[in-house]
Amino acid sequence: MERLPNVMKTILLDHGSGGRASQQLIGEVFLRYLDDPVLHRLEDCAVLEAQTGRLAFSTDSYVVDPIFFPGGNIGELAVNGTINDLAMRGARPLCLSLGLILEEGLAVDDLERIIAAIAGAGKTAGVPIVTGDTKVVPRGKADKIFINTSGIGVVDSDCEITADRAGKGDRIILSGTLADHGITILTRRAGLKVAGDLKSDTMALHTLVALLNSKLSGAVHTLRDPTRGGLATTLSEIAEATNLCMMLDETAIPIRPAVAAACELMGLDPLYLANEGKCTALVAADKADKVLALMRSTREGRDAAVIGEVTADYPGRVVLKTAIGGERLVEPLSGEPLPRIC
Amino acid sequence: MERLPNVMKTILLDHGSGGRASQQLIGEVFLRYLDDPVLHRLEDCAVLEAQTGRLAFSTDSYVVDPIFFPGGNIGELAVNGTINDLAMRGARPLCLSLGLILEEGLAVDDLERIIAAIAGAGKTAGVPIVTGDTKVVPRGKADKIFINTSGIGVVDSDCEITADRAGKGDRIILSGTLADHGITILTRRAGLKVAGDLKSDTMALHTLVALLNSKLSGAVHTLRDPTRGGLATTLSEIAEATNLCMMLDETAIPIRPAVAAACELMGLDPLYLANEGKCTALVAADKADKVLALMRSTREGRDAAVIGEVTADYPGRVVLKTAIGGERLVEPLSGEPLPRIC
Repeated sequence: MERLPNVMKTILLDHGSGGRASQQLIGEVFLRYLDDPVLHRLEDCAVLEAQTGRLAFSTDSYVVDPIFFPGGNIGELAVNGTINDLAMRGARPLCLSLGLILEEGLAVDDLERIIAAIAGAGKTAGVPIVTGDTKVVPRGKADKIFINTSGIGVVDSDCEITADRAGKGDRIILSGTLADHGITILTRRAGLKVAGDLKSDTMALHTLVALLNSKLSGAVHTLRDPTRGGLATTLSEIAEATNLCMMLDETAIPIRPAVAAACELMGLDPLYLANEGKCTALVAADKADKVLALMRSTREGRDAAVIGEVTADYPGRVVLKTAIGGERLVEPLSGEPLPRIC
Repeated sequence: MERLPNVMKTILLDHGSGGRASQQLIGEVFLRYLDDPVLHRLEDCAVLEAQTGRLAFSTDSYVVDPIFFPGGNIGELAVNGTINDLAMRGARPLCLSLGLILEEGLAVDDLERIIAAIAGAGKTAGVPIVTGDTKVVPRGKADKIFINTSGIGVVDSDCEITADRAGKGDRIILSGTLADHGITILTRRAGLKVAGDLKSDTMALHTLVALLNSKLSGAVHTLRDPTRGGLATTLSEIAEATNLCMMLDETAIPIRPAVAAACELMGLDPLYLANEGKCTALVAADKADKVLALMRSTREGRDAAVIGEVTADYPGRVVLKTAIGGERLVEPLSGEPLPRIC
């Protein structure tokens, strides 16, 4: 990595003024990593080719604390998170915008690591950053860095993946292990040293979704990524939207032993913890085996499991069949703020 | 305005957790004002109709301090600002996303005023908010509210408005008076009581641009909104992009007496202050009169004036012919941070 000029060791207010210092920051940090030719035009907005198909549009701000954590940093989280929001409607992500709010005094080295992670995640996913904006606020008026990414995608005409398509009998598939991202952030923030290898699962899921769409068109009715509020809250939303019951089998939910142990230690229910590289798929019962096998054939979905079924038992509710044979009502997250998890 | 439940007077961390409290905030504050049916689906992303034509995509974060100011607040600024970024490439704005970062403790009344302003500005402009996201950070980790808006627009195939289309002989037109927004924010922040009626010029310019495109197709070569860094910095960027000289006539630049007086008082050069409802148009010399007349026939452009000409005199530079007949080199903004102006 080339050394930056000495003058640019920390972010100054001037870097957000729109003048010379802003241009220097853009040129020497951002454009070194972000190489999309549309972005390099540095116009007020990006102009892209015309697209065939419906447009998908999503936005997410990322305020995670800490900004660096095992398995990633706020940069790749911001790229993968918005790609996944697009993918959850079956969209092929086309491009992203990048809006940065920087706190005066942020180390430029840290910013550079984050921009490199953004560029890397964008390249891995094949989704370029095509337009951006940077603001700087005085010390103490933000916390290091907040990132907004918005994304445009294209939804093919035969693709209809929405919450209200879920139906009775659908199988509920989780694409991988539960709560990895949430428990990693929370143990890190609490300064806990826990045994085992906790790390964020941040990962883009659009190629997995595209594979399902192309090989098993129509099989997937609903997709959601259980981020804030976790699996419990995400499934509650689907239960409410459909007025059906999401009946989960506790023993079927994949969770790493280290994650389960850390949740136990901190008194947290993994059903409420955020996941960043996982999705919940509600799929036609007669296609569930095929969807599961296809998911498991991929890197993103190798730990996928059928974790439950859509029933009419408790309309609008999520219910957990526990390991000891009971049934427990699972409420959406309420009154337990877990801030800055993403 | 209906009263909100007593429990919701200030923003709590829980409002950003993605659970019940988030849903309550979305339902009782956001969706009361923002009424687009696509937004009301509350899916992870919006799905829009297919569009004919190239897509324009822009993002901007707004961190203005104070959040309420004469002439507007951070809400309409965020809507109009991103609409204008799209319009500066000749795009018809289609829709916006809304990303909010709220500080714990923000008064819900203030948030509601801002959301109402966002909804109002969106309606006035005919550009709906179709997708959104809200995060809450602990007290002291942000300053009240930061807003990101990203926008999608459509650029017609015969429309080509870019910095590098400006040519020698082009006239430089400013669509209205200079520095209104910047001086309003700065005097307000300094607690200065100044004589005269200072207020922000925040305003969407896309209908003005659409009118120019439809009536005088091809006449406008380059459009920029002189926001951060002001007219001086914006024109410097065009001068550098074209390697031509932007020769300005000081006496021709429209500025309100109250703005000029406040700039004098604060020792600020209005050429460097932000404008939020103005654009700079570089237009073919033989069409300049028609563009000017058309602009002046609109509410947005009634104070428009030809303020200079593109020449080859000082390549890559902005030069001001002063009132007393001299020539002054105008550098882009440097070393004078004017933070949180937008």
